[in-house]
Amino acid sequence: MKLFETELKVVNIGLESFRQGLSDSGVKSVQAQFKPPLSQEAGLFSKAAGHAAKIAKANKKALDRILAAKPALVGMGVALDVIPGMRKDLILHAGPPITWDRMCGPMRGGIMCALMYEGLAKDAKEAEKLAASGKIKYEPCHEHNAVGPMAGIISASMPVFVVKNEEHGNLSYATQNEGLGKVLRYGAFGPEVIERLKWMEKTLYPTLKAAIESLGRIDLKTMVAQALHMGDEVHNRNRAGTSLLYRALAPAVIKTCKDPETAAKSLEFINGNDHFFLNLSMALSKASLDAGRDVKDSSLVVVMARNGTDFGVQLSGTGGRWFTGPAEVPDALYFPGYTKADANPDIGDSAITETNGLGGFAIAAAPAIVQFVGGKAADALSYTLAMYEITVGESNIYKIPALDFRGTPTGIDVIKVAKSGIRPFIDTGVAHKNAGVGQVGAGVLSAPAEPFVKAFEYFAKRLK
Amino acid sequence: MKLFETELKVVNIGLESFRQGLSDSGVKSVQAQFKPPLSQEAGLFSKAAGHAAKIAKANKKALDRILAAKPALVGMGVALDVIPGMRKDLILHAGPPITWDRMCGPMRGGIMCALMYEGLAKDAKEAEKLAASGKIKYEPCHEHNAVGPMAGIISASMPVFVVKNEEHGNLSYATQNEGLGKVLRYGAFGPEVIERLKWMEKTLYPTLKAAIESLGRIDLKTMVAQALHMGDEVHNRNRAGTSLLYRALAPAVIKTCKDPETAAKSLEFINGNDHFFLNLSMALSKASLDAGRDVKDSSLVVVMARNGTDFGVQLSGTGGRWFTGPAEVPDALYFPGYTKADANPDIGDSAITETNGLGGFAIAAAPAIVQFVGGKAADALSYTLAMYEITVGESNIYKIPALDFRGTPTGIDVIKVAKSGIRPFIDTGVAHKNAGVGQVGAGVLSAPAEPFVKAFEYFAKRLK
Repeated sequence: MKLFETELKVVNIGLESFRQGLSDSGVKSVQAQFKPPLSQEAGLFSKAAGHAAKIAKANKKALDRILAAKPALVGMGVALDVIPGMRKDLILHAGPPITWDRMCGPMRGGIMCALMYEGLAKDAKEAEKLAASGKIKYEPCHEHNAVGPMAGIISASMPVFVVKNEEHGNLSYATQNEGLGKVLRYGAFGPEVIERLKWMEKTLYPTLKAAIESLGRIDLKTMVAQALHMGDEVHNRNRAGTSLLYRALAPAVIKTCKDPETAAKSLEFINGNDHFFLNLSMALSKASLDAGRDVKDSSLVVVMARNGTDFGVQLSGTGGRWFTGPAEVPDALYFPGYTKADANPDIGDSAITETNGLGGFAIAAAPAIVQFVGGKAADALSYTLAMYEITVGESNIYKIPALDFRGTPTGIDVIKVAKSGIRPFIDTGVAHKNAGVGQVGAGVLSAPAEPFVKAFEYFAKRLK
Repeated sequence: MKLFETELKVVNIGLESFRQGLSDSGVKSVQAQFKPPLSQEAGLFSKAAGHAAKIAKANKKALDRILAAKPALVGMGVALDVIPGMRKDLILHAGPPITWDRMCGPMRGGIMCALMYEGLAKDAKEAEKLAASGKIKYEPCHEHNAVGPMAGIISASMPVFVVKNEEHGNLSYATQNEGLGKVLRYGAFGPEVIERLKWMEKTLYPTLKAAIESLGRIDLKTMVAQALHMGDEVHNRNRAGTSLLYRALAPAVIKTCKDPETAAKSLEFINGNDHFFLNLSMALSKASLDAGRDVKDSSLVVVMARNGTDFGVQLSGTGGRWFTGPAEVPDALYFPGYTKADANPDIGDSAITETNGLGGFAIAAAPAIVQFVGGKAADALSYTLAMYEITVGESNIYKIPALDFRGTPTGIDVIKVAKSGIRPFIDTGVAHKNAGVGQVGAGVLSAPAEPFVKAFEYFAKRLK
């Protein structure tokens, strides 16, 4: 009984709402930042602990390869010509594998747009019929060394950037970014969307291709490092990255493009789209992470990607196997006239940036983004700091000024995620859930637990 | 005696070194952040307090005009043609008025360079003789609506940017930035310096002039607002401002420049100089602050400027009168081979950015700069937070992400400076003290007390 006569000083572990009751009664308390493990299979944590040295060694090997990557923009080409395994009847999409019947609205819209763009369908109705007919095949971008934002659609005629990891020799691919609003990647398919894509194919692509070829290479790694010092996290904010790319490209465009009007229009297109660099920060991340694949016993996450229905994860140590669970709807700032009810669940390969220690993992470099959803600069620092809890290292070049130039948290360890209950923090654009509409907002979310639980349990069970 | 038997808990006010003694003896203490007033004339503080309402009203009027300014880049011209009162035998310089015999090395070097550039002297020896002969006149840039970084030299043939405050109609002027290293503004005068200046006059200037004219205007205020979200404080860091200006200019350069080689070279010059935007952030600040001049009873600082010998201040309520004191040597990161012993005291009109709530006042937006001198990101926040203590308002458009987009501290009140002892925080480049050498580092410093003491006392004595 003596307990109740003295002043109570309570430590609350678990649900923070319990603490509110104490606070309401004037009782002093502190909240312990504890989350239960995501996996209920306690025995698997013990088993993984028993193999800790081996796993740590494997993870170091994978992370060293990722950190040593030297991704550079080395050229452009048409998807059919340059992407391994590309075919005319194949459409690449964001996230893990999915069939037409399970695809979300914006992915269906993006595919319909691509079929009209390719001249395989004359209108939306015909495109929808063809898309569902079984004649068109669908495979993840990630299974072709490519990445695509939002719907992530790549069809045969689309021009793509070619990024080379000059340290390991592997290549990655991404399309040119279309800008915001009614665009294919957000599921829009109106005539203006296709007209823009055609201009990007016929005018922008040859202009940039010639400029890039004249430069030989553009060092993307240094560019991203600088962009992080300039308020970008290179996922939701790419104004600095776009600016630095633009500065590198412009003189080359002038020298290589015969027609000044075309040169000016091409540069104005990039200047009018602060997200132009996004596709390159994604390709840079893909080229870096692919170098860390297939290290035996490594529990590092090498892919996080969403198709708008499922959220998928791949680990270095488990080859090409996808671990999936339902994608969730982000907290977002919605454009006027839209609400969370309009939003499609999380979609796109762009979480490859977070997998590479950028995007939400580097959000302390870009506090403007958390302001979208009512957050403060201190929240941005907290989000990044939390990610150090689930990563095995820090970037050697991507650094955060507000954290005294500490390297970004890099190399997500699925064991740490499963055990700590801290889920990867992702920032993202938000597409309307229906095909044909487009972007409705931008926001943030934590990755769903299920893919990480499945990945951890699969990985741990096979340890020996 | 009882005092010495109990545990001492000391509050130390004043010199922090006293606290070290306590700390060394294991005595607990805290340091109160108190500084003695700069002025010893206590009666003048009482007098100013008696006129507080009138002064506050006047300061609000001046600040409102400064904050309402809409500075835009509207054109370019040759100094002789566009700067009011410019003459062939006149050289404009940074800071308050100064005669040749009192000028520091880098200012003398810059003047010698200008005389050779103008064809008035054939070598350094001849230039030095002419400069000292009395045939050449020297006046502050500030007295001609102009501003110049470091030595701040403007001679008759030099092309200048024309910035218009579209709200109040006043104009300001600044030269094109030459880049780093051996350049006129740091006092260098070798053949390569003059050659570069000639290229800037004959090639860069007509290219940029045509581009700016085709655009009509470039909104500098929005550009600086964006640059603060991108890691610049637009004094020592101008990478973002330079990038944004470049993005605006490039398509116009392509359209208006007949020769692609010239267009490419001009853009490459800007791309190669991340300080290119500095002269425009200075001209923007000058055009904004000039609108706040000559408000009766206003104690706002409208100029802080250094000529490398003296640090000068002007107040809104005291017309064109300069208040001066010796300039001090900054704490700096020195280039290899140089030390503080090589450094010239603080020099340049660039402290106009601080006077306008930018530069050192906005250093929380650019923590990279305090790293130069061993500081942390938290120090950058502290420096900016301290400046709110000596300003009467906050910017309505220049905002700092790390402070949850709080407006920068704007409108230095000389009474607050004199009373609090908090001196304006300035970041800056550092010139070698000898003519002909150039830049030796970059760093930070607090403005000297003397000009503020003189300004406060003069202002307060005349209150009635």
